[in-house]
Amino acid sequence: MLKSAELGRALSKEDYEAALGDLRTSLLKAQAELERAGFPVIILIHGADGAGKTETLNALSEWLDARFLRVQAYEPPGEEARQRPEFWRYWMWLPSAGRIGLFLGSWYTAPILERVYGTLKDRAFEQALTRIKDFERTLADDGALFIKLWFHVSEKTQKRRFKAAQRSKNTRFLVQKEQWRNHEHYAEFITITERVLRDTSTGQAPWTVIEAADDRYRNLTAGLTVLERIQHHLAHRRPSEAPSALPEIADPVTLFDRLDLTRTLSKAEYEPRMAALQGKLGVLARKLKKRGRDAIFLFEGWDASGKGGAIRRLVWALDARQYRIISVAAPTDEERAHHYLWRFFRHLPGKGRVTIYDRSWYGRVLVERVEGLATEEETRRAYKEINDFEQELTRGGTVLVKFFLHISREEQLRRFQEREREPWKQHKITAEDYRNRAKSNLYELVASEMIERNSTDYAPFTLVEAEDKHYARVKVLETICRSLEEAL
Amino acid sequence: MLKSAELGRALSKEDYEAALGDLRTSLLKAQAELERAGFPVIILIHGADGAGKTETLNALSEWLDARFLRVQAYEPPGEEARQRPEFWRYWMWLPSAGRIGLFLGSWYTAPILERVYGTLKDRAFEQALTRIKDFERTLADDGALFIKLWFHVSEKTQKRRFKAAQRSKNTRFLVQKEQWRNHEHYAEFITITERVLRDTSTGQAPWTVIEAADDRYRNLTAGLTVLERIQHHLAHRRPSEAPSALPEIADPVTLFDRLDLTRTLSKAEYEPRMAALQGKLGVLARKLKKRGRDAIFLFEGWDASGKGGAIRRLVWALDARQYRIISVAAPTDEERAHHYLWRFFRHLPGKGRVTIYDRSWYGRVLVERVEGLATEEETRRAYKEINDFEQELTRGGTVLVKFFLHISREEQLRRFQEREREPWKQHKITAEDYRNRAKSNLYELVASEMIERNSTDYAPFTLVEAEDKHYARVKVLETICRSLEEAL
Repeated sequence: MLKSAELGRALSKEDYEAALGDLRTSLLKAQAELERAGFPVIILIHGADGAGKTETLNALSEWLDARFLRVQAYEPPGEEARQRPEFWRYWMWLPSAGRIGLFLGSWYTAPILERVYGTLKDRAFEQALTRIKDFERTLADDGALFIKLWFHVSEKTQKRRFKAAQRSKNTRFLVQKEQWRNHEHYAEFITITERVLRDTSTGQAPWTVIEAADDRYRNLTAGLTVLERIQHHLAHRRPSEAPSALPEIADPVTLFDRLDLTRTLSKAEYEPRMAALQGKLGVLARKLKKRGRDAIFLFEGWDASGKGGAIRRLVWALDARQYRIISVAAPTDEERAHHYLWRFFRHLPGKGRVTIYDRSWYGRVLVERVEGLATEEETRRAYKEINDFEQELTRGGTVLVKFFLHISREEQLRRFQEREREPWKQHKITAEDYRNRAKSNLYELVASEMIERNSTDYAPFTLVEAEDKHYARVKVLETICRSLEEAL
Repeated sequence: MLKSAELGRALSKEDYEAALGDLRTSLLKAQAELERAGFPVIILIHGADGAGKTETLNALSEWLDARFLRVQAYEPPGEEARQRPEFWRYWMWLPSAGRIGLFLGSWYTAPILERVYGTLKDRAFEQALTRIKDFERTLADDGALFIKLWFHVSEKTQKRRFKAAQRSKNTRFLVQKEQWRNHEHYAEFITITERVLRDTSTGQAPWTVIEAADDRYRNLTAGLTVLERIQHHLAHRRPSEAPSALPEIADPVTLFDRLDLTRTLSKAEYEPRMAALQGKLGVLARKLKKRGRDAIFLFEGWDASGKGGAIRRLVWALDARQYRIISVAAPTDEERAHHYLWRFFRHLPGKGRVTIYDRSWYGRVLVERVEGLATEEETRRAYKEINDFEQELTRGGTVLVKFFLHISREEQLRRFQEREREPWKQHKITAEDYRNRAKSNLYELVASEMIERNSTDYAPFTLVEAEDKHYARVKVLETICRSLEEAL
């Protein structure tokens, strides 16, 4: 496969310069259209040592409008990244809508190197490629354009290039022991690379192999490929479907029907149990910190189902320095210019920390679906994307505990009315809360489907009978303590 | 001074609960008004160990609307923070307009501890307090409200509290060796604290000392102080002045008149010098990385003065993994909701890195002043704020090199017209460029004042005669090489 990029293709200086003017104009035009069309472009620059990746990066940087460009070069993960799931830093690199991200090295770098040098076994390598494909599909489904360039040089060319670089004082540093070591493993690199290219050349995110022995041919071909792919995507991407709100339905059968809302705890039972659980949680939270693990406690549930109260009882057991409560509100313009999961990656806790979500990424498959803020297809895709996201979290060592608090409609109405009577709770009740009530059947059906689809073995939902606040708060704390005990 | 907070003030449970309802309603109301008024509130919670800081933090968190609240607890700086200037992380903590930031520990924590234990000498301590006052003034001038609470307990109460905490399994962890050690230094803490409170109680950011021996009294007083200060600021802050654009003026005498724009370099002189300088810069950049230092090269100058071209020649000498070019464009909504310097703090390079600014924070005192996007007073304040900011950068080890590229108006017009003839440069010329030209005299005067006021010994501006591109590019590279050589 890579052999076909050893045909000796080259360009004369005249041909190169003749083609360059048009290319640059067209690239800038395409970039301006892209800014209006509002999808992100992710360009990966990969290839053998000595293939001229940096030179092409510089050429593309020069040709494109730097104001809408983000350049990111791969480096081993720093402290911040090591404290978070593997893909966290790649999410943080992503360009926003209308922008181009130009990546020298990427999520492919570590798996390939580690496979060649054997620190990654074959099965783990396979899994790494699967995660990469899931990651790219998630972004491509959301409209991102991937342009993945692989620069190839023959073993002979690589050697010749290294020697040439070593002869000049100014380029000597480019060829270190590491490069010569990679050169010795040239054949293995080819084998692994061919497998990667085959396996990860998907319809949405194909690889383009470019013969890289001649600088001018390589640069121009890279530029033309970028141009052609952007133009094609501008012309042929699917028009975005207009989302619409779902209509209310008749009484459905859902998971919530099975809950026993008569469960209660008297004050006399509640107080000692709560105190004991808070003490226990305090100890477990310190253990979490000592072990360098982190936790996310996520609360979904109906308006007035007692999420806030449960969260307060929970954080009273914690050191204020350890936790953060994130109440999910409207996204900022930077957040809206990225995939909907981006803002959740952005706020992931570091090691030793506890993050509490008062509502969460489940908004995508619940309120956004019902109210028609996302299309039916987007929310359907989101089931898998969320499962992937949570797997990525738990794979990184996060203890993830998810709750859905359920109350009857009668109890909800009673609580709304109570809030309206208490001045400092009035702000919690808005016309929207009553509007949501009018779609209760639909909300229950959609929430029920969400709970079924997103209850995985690594991150199950706990349904909480929340009609009685005492019972609910104890169940929440018990579940959290049990999950932490199992994990630590 | 702190003795006056040992009067034994306490509240009965009845009085506390009677007052609480009103307080909570009023706090939520004030918070809603704050959201509309659009200034940030910074609440610092400080005080002796055992004074109940965490309890009050939890109480305030409970009373306020968590959706518009950010809680941040002090911790020793992590890897990211250690790579940046001392105040970087405090900038990153700041709440946006309309929000409340609740800080348990702050920029005061380290200086006080280090002074008590003698690792900070008196002179350095003094300087630390000055930097703190500058930091707080910068934010307060921009409209931020500071509420700085100091919780005081007597030596006896502290001891009693520690012993009580140790008796219960659930609170034992709160009292460690460190706390007992601090207790032994109680008297020194009081001396240092009194000095800090005196010195940093400014008109804009005063301290409130609260007697903390009684939990109810402390919590309620903290709540009432927060409420009263927010209400006062809502009622009495200065109405923001409407900025207005400055009118064009007659030919002024400026720094630019002294520049000799006839300086040129022939192609034969330019090429070898450029190649040598690029080689030299490459070596210096690697040295920068090895030494764990970082650099910022900042470019200001007229439209079409050749900033982009100079930057390109410069980065050709650098490894793409080491540098980032930031082209300053319109701020995002998150950025607009903060002090104008926030977005520059946000993008500060880590150790070993080079950041190149194509336009910069000087927009505040140049285009924003001329075009009336900031008031005259704001831009005047900005001279000092920018000098403080750059001092903070260089104090942290950043090599900061600043350029202003100057060309004559005739040359500018010639370049505009040339760009309009070259298709791939057309996008660089807009109607705005011609509008700016119509205010050339004013721009020159304002830029000249800016260069004079912001040329400090630690961060001088280099004026570049840019009429001849060869000459300008060589001067830029020579200046950068010399600055790096001196610094490394």
